[in-house]
Amino acid sequence: DSKLKVFSLNSNPELAKEIADNIGVDLGKCSVTSFSDGEIQINIEESIRGCDVYVVQSTCEPVNQHIMELLIMIDALKRASARTINIVMPYYGYARQDRKARAREPITAKLVADLLETAGASRVLMLDLHAPQIQGFFNLPIDHLVGVPILSDYFEEKNFDDVVIVSPDHGGVTRARKMADRLKAPIAIIDKRRPRPNVAEVMNIVGNIEGKTAILIDDIIDTAGTITLAANALVESGAKEVYACCTHPVLSGPAIERIDNSKIKELVVTNTIPLGEEKSSEKITELSVAGLISEAIIRVHERQSISILFD
Amino acid sequence: DSKLKVFSLNSNPELAKEIADNIGVDLGKCSVTSFSDGEIQINIEESIRGCDVYVVQSTCEPVNQHIMELLIMIDALKRASARTINIVMPYYGYARQDRKARAREPITAKLVADLLETAGASRVLMLDLHAPQIQGFFNLPIDHLVGVPILSDYFEEKNFDDVVIVSPDHGGVTRARKMADRLKAPIAIIDKRRPRPNVAEVMNIVGNIEGKTAILIDDIIDTAGTITLAANALVESGAKEVYACCTHPVLSGPAIERIDNSKIKELVVTNTIPLGEEKSSEKITELSVAGLISEAIIRVHERQSISILFD
Ligand SMILES: Nc1ncnc2c1ncn2[C@@H]1O[C@H](COP(=O)(O)O)[C@@H](O)[C@H]1O
Ligand SMILES: Nc1ncnc2c1ncn2[C@@H]1O[C@H](COP(=O)(O)O)[C@@H](O)[C@H]1O
Repeated sequence: DSKLKVFSLNSNPELAKEIADNIGVDLGKCSVTSFSDGEIQINIEESIRGCDVYVVQSTCEPVNQHIMELLIMIDALKRASARTINIVMPYYGYARQDRKARAREPITAKLVADLLETAGASRVLMLDLHAPQIQGFFNLPIDHLVGVPILSDYFEEKNFDDVVIVSPDHGGVTRARKMADRLKAPIAIIDKRRPRPNVAEVMNIVGNIEGKTAILIDDIIDTAGTITLAANALVESGAKEVYACCTHPVLSGPAIERIDNSKIKELVVTNTIPLGEEKSSEKITELSVAGLISEAIIRVHERQSISILFD
Repeated sequence: DSKLKVFSLNSNPELAKEIADNIGVDLGKCSVTSFSDGEIQINIEESIRGCDVYVVQSTCEPVNQHIMELLIMIDALKRASARTINIVMPYYGYARQDRKARAREPITAKLVADLLETAGASRVLMLDLHAPQIQGFFNLPIDHLVGVPILSDYFEEKNFDDVVIVSPDHGGVTRARKMADRLKAPIAIIDKRRPRPNVAEVMNIVGNIEGKTAILIDDIIDTAGTITLAANALVESGAKEVYACCTHPVLSGPAIERIDNSKIKELVVTNTIPLGEEKSSEKITELSVAGLISEAIIRVHERQSISILFD
C-alpha cells in the first residue's frame, strides 16, 4: 500500500503536529518561507514519490498568503510525483462569498475551488462549511466533517439543568437543531429584522428561554457583532445565563473586546483557526479537532467509510 | 464596436490612471477593499456587460495579495458578462520560479498562468518577462512588450562620448545587445564565476570598458547585490563612470542602501512597479511605460498589429 505523509504549511502548525502525532507519523520535512521580495519559497525536503500526501492548511488570516502557499505546495507536490494530494482545510476562507448577493460581485468560494483543482488537488477534507453547497463547487471528492459533536460533548459534561440551544439567525437553525438533538434540548431562534429602512434592528426571540441556560451556536464568529447582541438580548429577555460556541473563531477587528464586554459567560471554539496571542480572552475555551481529522485521514487512507464520524 | 474600459486594482493606480488618460477614458468605477478578516471585497460599480475590459495590475509586493485581487476581479468581470477580460500586467511576479532548479521545487510562474486562465482571463499583456518562455505557459494570446527602447531613448539624450552596454550576467546578454544596437555601442559582460566551492566569486569582465561610460542593464533589480557588485567591479577595472537601468525595480531588502553606497551614478527604472516612499533614492530616475502600454491597448482594441511597437 502507498505511504501516508502529512505536511504542514504556515496557517496551523500546532493542529498539523497533533494530527500527525495521532496518526503516528512524523510531519513531512519542508520549509515554507519567503524570498526578500515576499514571494513564497517552498522546499520539500524528502521524497514523496508515489505517496498519499495530506497537506494541512486553514485559509484563515492572512488568507491570500495562505491560499497561495497552499496552491504553490500543491504544484510542488504534483511535480514531485505524489500519488494523491489530499487537502486538509479545517477552515475554508472566502466561504461567505458563495453567491452573487449583489450585481457584479465575484463568487470567490467557487474561484478558490477552481484554483485548488487547477493546482492539482485530488481531494479536500473540510469542516463545517459556511454553506454545504460549496461542496458542489468542486469536481473532486470532498469529505465534510462537522464540529457539532465536539462542541456538544463539551457542554454535555456541564450537566446543565434546563438548557436551550439558540441559533443567532435564520441561517443557522439546522445546526442548532443538530446540537439540540445531541443534548436533548429545545431550540430557540433570534429573529432579527429591520421594521423599516434606516431604523434599528429588532431582536425578537422565537422560543422559550425564560430561566434557562442558553447556548448560542454558529459556524463562524468573525467580528462577534451578531453573537454578542444576541447574548445580551437573551439575558434581557430572561435567560438565566448565556454560553456561545462556534467551530471557526475568525475573531477579527473588535471581536475580543465585544466578547469581553458582552453577557457571554464562556465562548467555546475549536482550533480550526489558531487563536494566537492577539485573540486571547479568559472567556474562551478551545477544543481540538485533531482527533476527528486524524480519524478521518486514517479511514480515508484505509478506504473505509467516514460516515461513522457523523454519529 | 464594443466599448473599451480600463480598471485599476491596488498595485499601481498611478500607472493605470496615466494609461486611461492616454487612451482618453475614465478609469472604471470599482472598489477593491478588505473585509475585517482580510478577505478581499470587490465591488464593480458600473455595468461592463459586453465590454472589452482591461485590468491593470502588477503582481509586485505584496505579491500574493495582488494575485488574489486580480483573480477575484477576473471572476467578478466574467460573471458580470464582460466580452473580453484583458490583463495588463506590467510586472509578472514569480517569474523567476520558472523551472525546477532543484528537486521538488514548484514552477510558480506556470501555476500563476494556469490560475489566470482558470479565473477567466482572455489575454495578457506583459512587459519584459524574466524569461520569454513564460509566454508558452499560457494557452491565451500574450502581448509581450519590451522596455529597452524607453531606457535607450533616455540615455541617447545624454549624448555620452564613449559608451559600452554591460550585461551583469550571462542570462542578460541578449537584452544588452538590443540596447547596444539602439545606442550604436559595443557590449561587455560580467563573467561571474566561483573557482571552487566556498571560495568568493570572481568578477571577470569580458569586453573593453577602459575609460568608457558603462551602462549596466537588467530586467529586474531585486536586492541589488548583483548590480552593485558589477558597478563597483567596472569602476575598479577602469570604467570612467557607471549608470544602471532596469525595467522592473523590485528593490527589496537592502536594495536602496546598496545602491546609495555603490559606485552607480544614476539608476534608471520604469514604473511597472511603483517606487513608493520606502524605495526612494536621489540616484533613481523613473520613466513611464504608460505611453507604450496605452498605445498597445489601443492597437489591440482596434485589431491592429502591435509589432510596430518593437522597433
Ligand atoms: N470576509 C467577510 N466578512 C464579512 N462579510 C463577508 C465576508 N465575505 C463575504 N461577506 C458578505 O457576507 C454575506 C454572506 O454572508 P451570509 O449571509 O452569512 O452567508 C455576503 O453579502 C457577503 O458579501
Ligand atoms: N523572488 C525571488 N527572489 C530571489 N530568488 C528567487 C525568487 N524567485 C525565484 N528565485 C530563484 O532564482 C533562481 C532563478 O533566477 P534566474 O537564474 O535569474 O532565472 C531560481 O533558483 C529560483 O529559486
